[in-house]
Amino acid sequence: MPAEKSPDTEDISVREMSEYRPLLHRPVRKKIIEFERDGRLKHVILATQFTRHLLDELCDLADMVRELASDPEGRRKLSKLLCHLQAMMYFTQPSTRTFLSFSAVCRLLGIGTEQVRDSTVSSESSEGVKRESRFDSIRMFSSYFDLIIMRSKAPDLAECCAYLMNELENQDFNTRNIPIINAGSGADQHPTQALLDLYTIRRTFRFVDEKRTSRPRLEMLGDSYPHLTADVSNKTYAFCGDLGRGRTVRSLVELLMKYDHVSMVFISPSHPKFQLGEDLISRLRDRGIPFEEIDSLDACLDGIPILHQVDCLYMTRIQQEHNNQEDDEFFASTDMTNYRLTPERVDQMRSYAPILHPFPRDSVAGEIPTAIDSNPRAMYFHQARNGLWARAALLVHIFNADRALTQAYREHYADSHDFNRAVL
Amino acid sequence: MPAEKSPDTEDISVREMSEYRPLLHRPVRKKIIEFERDGRLKHVILATQFTRHLLDELCDLADMVRELASDPEGRRKLSKLLCHLQAMMYFTQPSTRTFLSFSAVCRLLGIGTEQVRDSTVSSESSEGVKRESRFDSIRMFSSYFDLIIMRSKAPDLAECCAYLMNELENQDFNTRNIPIINAGSGADQHPTQALLDLYTIRRTFRFVDEKRTSRPRLEMLGDSYPHLTADVSNKTYAFCGDLGRGRTVRSLVELLMKYDHVSMVFISPSHPKFQLGEDLISRLRDRGIPFEEIDSLDACLDGIPILHQVDCLYMTRIQQEHNNQEDDEFFASTDMTNYRLTPERVDQMRSYAPILHPFPRDSVAGEIPTAIDSNPRAMYFHQARNGLWARAALLVHIFNADRALTQAYREHYADSHDFNRAVL
Amino acid sequence: MPAEKSPDTEDISVREMSEYRPLLHRPVRKKIIEFERDGRLKHVILATQFTRHLLDELCDLADMVRELASDPEGRRKLSKLLCHLQAMMYFTQPSTRTFLSFSAVCRLLGIGTEQVRDSTVSSESSEGVKRESRFDSIRMFSSYFDLIIMRSKAPDLAECCAYLMNELENQDFNTRNIPIINAGSGADQHPTQALLDLYTIRRTFRFVDEKRTSRPRLEMLGDSYPHLTADVSNKTYAFCGDLGRGRTVRSLVELLMKYDHVSMVFISPSHPKFQLGEDLISRLRDRGIPFEEIDSLDACLDGIPILHQVDCLYMTRIQQEHNNQEDDEFFASTDMTNYRLTPERVDQMRSYAPILHPFPRDSVAGEIPTAIDSNPRAMYFHQARNGLWARAALLVHIFNADRALTQAYREHYADSHDFNRAVL
Repeated sequence: MPAEKSPDTEDISVREMSEYRPLLHRPVRKKIIEFERDGRLKHVILATQFTRHLLDELCDLADMVRELASDPEGRRKLSKLLCHLQAMMYFTQPSTRTFLSFSAVCRLLGIGTEQVRDSTVSSESSEGVKRESRFDSIRMFSSYFDLIIMRSKAPDLAECCAYLMNELENQDFNTRNIPIINAGSGADQHPTQALLDLYTIRRTFRFVDEKRTSRPRLEMLGDSYPHLTADVSNKTYAFCGDLGRGRTVRSLVELLMKYDHVSMVFISPSHPKFQLGEDLISRLRDRGIPFEEIDSLDACLDGIPILHQVDCLYMTRIQQEHNNQEDDEFFASTDMTNYRLTPERVDQMRSYAPILHPFPRDSVAGEIPTAIDSNPRAMYFHQARNGLWARAALLVHIFNADRALTQAYREHYADSHDFNRAVL
Repeated sequence: MPAEKSPDTEDISVREMSEYRPLLHRPVRKKIIEFERDGRLKHVILATQFTRHLLDELCDLADMVRELASDPEGRRKLSKLLCHLQAMMYFTQPSTRTFLSFSAVCRLLGIGTEQVRDSTVSSESSEGVKRESRFDSIRMFSSYFDLIIMRSKAPDLAECCAYLMNELENQDFNTRNIPIINAGSGADQHPTQALLDLYTIRRTFRFVDEKRTSRPRLEMLGDSYPHLTADVSNKTYAFCGDLGRGRTVRSLVELLMKYDHVSMVFISPSHPKFQLGEDLISRLRDRGIPFEEIDSLDACLDGIPILHQVDCLYMTRIQQEHNNQEDDEFFASTDMTNYRLTPERVDQMRSYAPILHPFPRDSVAGEIPTAIDSNPRAMYFHQARNGLWARAALLVHIFNADRALTQAYREHYADSHDFNRAVL
Repeated sequence: MPAEKSPDTEDISVREMSEYRPLLHRPVRKKIIEFERDGRLKHVILATQFTRHLLDELCDLADMVRELASDPEGRRKLSKLLCHLQAMMYFTQPSTRTFLSFSAVCRLLGIGTEQVRDSTVSSESSEGVKRESRFDSIRMFSSYFDLIIMRSKAPDLAECCAYLMNELENQDFNTRNIPIINAGSGADQHPTQALLDLYTIRRTFRFVDEKRTSRPRLEMLGDSYPHLTADVSNKTYAFCGDLGRGRTVRSLVELLMKYDHVSMVFISPSHPKFQLGEDLISRLRDRGIPFEEIDSLDACLDGIPILHQVDCLYMTRIQQEHNNQEDDEFFASTDMTNYRLTPERVDQMRSYAPILHPFPRDSVAGEIPTAIDSNPRAMYFHQARNGLWARAALLVHIFNADRALTQAYREHYADSHDFNRAVL
């Protein structure tokens, strides 16, 4: 019985969150140490929390999860790792994909889940009048659960919840500080999407030899691309579409900035709303990372088509649901085909260059037509599945089960006499 | 926040499904081999996929599940059979009963479940504009889950999804073909309901001696019904009510046609919409299966009331929600009491003849008044519970766990020194 | 797709429940023996079912659950206790808190759960017309599940369902009588909330020494409060707020009446609607339990402020959603600040006296402002968490797993060489 969200409820949230304003406005460096405990992540709020070192560690854990998940006995081992835990999935912003991914990850690791998906269902506004504060809801969740995975339209809400947890722990009575995981908040941050994107990129650029061939794949590719190396570094990453309003691009750019010798190309309509935010642009400049902003997939750089040059192409959906009338007019006067892939455009790309997309894609606008799905460069479905392994690795890390995972992995491959499959 | 289903979304589905039109219009015989792998069912789409031999096998598995489920230790064994799997329950057509049954079955076998119950919740139309194609949703599910159990108003959608899975597998890169189980699609097919109906009939007609009596039950019944045999064959099956618009009757008739010496009686208003479809009628004719169409539970055949003659009576609800104005007028001018059971009518039936109903029943129209519930012929609540064992058997078969089930069953009864209870 | 509840559906429920009217109107003493089997609770419908002896037993079980839940290995042991069971959570009245609590409890004990949270979703009225009777829904649940936890606006519905189950068992064919647990019905009963409130009170009044101190806590408190004893008895309990319309106060008063030398103070607006019901008042009189009704937290008794005198203060929310126009006018003319705590009022309370609240609290009315949350008397968040242990204890009792729990507990503390933590 969805009720209209009462203005009161929103006011309360805003009022409550305002207590944390001073904390929110600190430099990121000061914040992220508060999201850690004993040298590991406690709350996952911002993509910048992932250091190069931690990314490597998480990707290694993700590889182990992936291998174990490939057979029934390995899955049984995984399902015992965190079976003593229960997670609340608090998704007040609709999201099927991220929700299902986290839910599958929890079950994979044996974590029990419960969900609150619409804030109007809870006492916050049920019957329009119960008027429970959002922070009381969060404290209730922390009474019953061991972990909150949350997604919200309210920017900074996940961050404020992390502060609330820390604050309670600092009071001298017996309260529970449980991890908060940001599964998308506002237009700003989606750290676990960035993690899975990065994991997909790392896996792709390892050039693993999945088929038996006479020569290793990287060596063969070297014939055409002599400077190609097997790592995330030393690559050119292109991003295409609605770069200003999607939080996934922002979060992934943050992570790629941690790698050496990367350069970036941003392909979007020439309008501040659709271009990468000024703040990120300045940070790229400050860090000396080479980048270009262009307005078509067919544009050239130094006289060479950009699609010949990129090592990885990250496509995004135009978030038309956020258009106002002015945006609609801008689109009507813009050639949007410049931001849609076609089989011809894909053919111009380097043979190994992966095409990524955070999904869902828009089947009407067609930024990636289905005709491209069977192209070997299309990695977007693998990307979704990689989300399972990357998010599982993150939970394993947070709950200090990395040693148990490594142990399970070793036992499994010792048992099965099949160490060779375990290509890490 | 249920949104209006945008016309775009429906158009997309129709457009997508149209690709499969040529496959949909092939003869059933050609289709069903595509729903198999390695001699067992892969996708369960049509009731006709169940051969006589497979029905016997599934019923035997169902008996084992049923026995094991009768005590805690047996349940623990069952819950380990498929605990490495996760199922997506994609129910875009509301259905509490079938949903709960499959959900309970999954937990019984240790399968984790997640659900998408309203297509408007998913990205397909969330916020009215994300416009993900339905086949992208299905591929997403196949990234995260090992099985899709789906129910939809769209006829043929489950079948198209099975083709999509097969197609992906045939492309030469690494994709996942996961089983699709049709839990009701359109007005056409409901194969697992037919399976549980058939299982209930088979169990009933075994005339198992549940109480200690001086003589076996079948022998005693033989005094009054000398030609009675302990099998599904050699019986007269009556169906009463809304035979044209209910998919359960259609699917069960398909299965019963596979048995020897069955005859059928169809009791419904004399109006093409409520009578069994022409296609099925022709198939009954072609197969030489004797049947009659009559318009009242009180009608006689060869001068004898039909209720004296039937071995099994399958009642159905009048699906008034599908009435148009013309139907309403037809009903107003028809004596609908002809399609309602009364205690007096039940008393006319053979003492052993089961009354079935796929449920829900209509408590206002009253096709089966509650006064009949305590009659020993009333099998409709047992029928619902049998759904657990029959559907569990089906999943065990699909995932190749029949040997593991048999093994668990043997161990269990060896352990408990209670082989006698195991009346198969 | 929430539909308007059709008048038909409600009529059916009323009609069905009317069959049980004679049973509903019997004296409580006659009813409660029907909710038992073999000396233990079968159905949990009324708070009065908990005897003093049973309360002690359940609190001891709850302590064991609580201890085991404090570490991963203990949790694993708990999760095996009832892992052969499946529960239906049938919550047709919205409730996040009670729902999440029971759901977490089930997972804690390994019980699988499924939910029906809106009666309009089920066949009872899906598509507005299926018109399944509510008792058919309940029987369906009993086919698929081993336990029904239900919450409903309809008074007595849970009780009627218990009678339905018993009735089916008494018919001579093979049906399932599964336990019904009342998780809140009508304005009348909320027995498991009362149980967790009582458990919280018992724990608090044990004055356990959680920190190492030179003298035991009770001994130190004795300096200021020489008559203080470590039990639920011999205490004064105050209840403040909307005492007439909240079922939690009613249920807890029932339980406290079973203890010796308790007295009670009821603080509410002087209006029959907000004061404790006449029926309970007469029972307190009949039992000779001293009580006072006053109209402000600042009122005095025998010249001494009431807040100086109470051992425990139970706050409640004003249920404004149930106000009619007359009530609104009454409120407008009443000083509602008399029923709100302030830090100054809390400072007047005895140092050990717990503040309880069944939650949610009203963040706009502010009967307990957040400034009080860090006061050591604030027990309301602990109270929520205690609900897990108390409800788990109840399920353990119902399903006859107390011996298994005790065994698991002993093994666990023998294993961990940490008997000292186990402060029961």
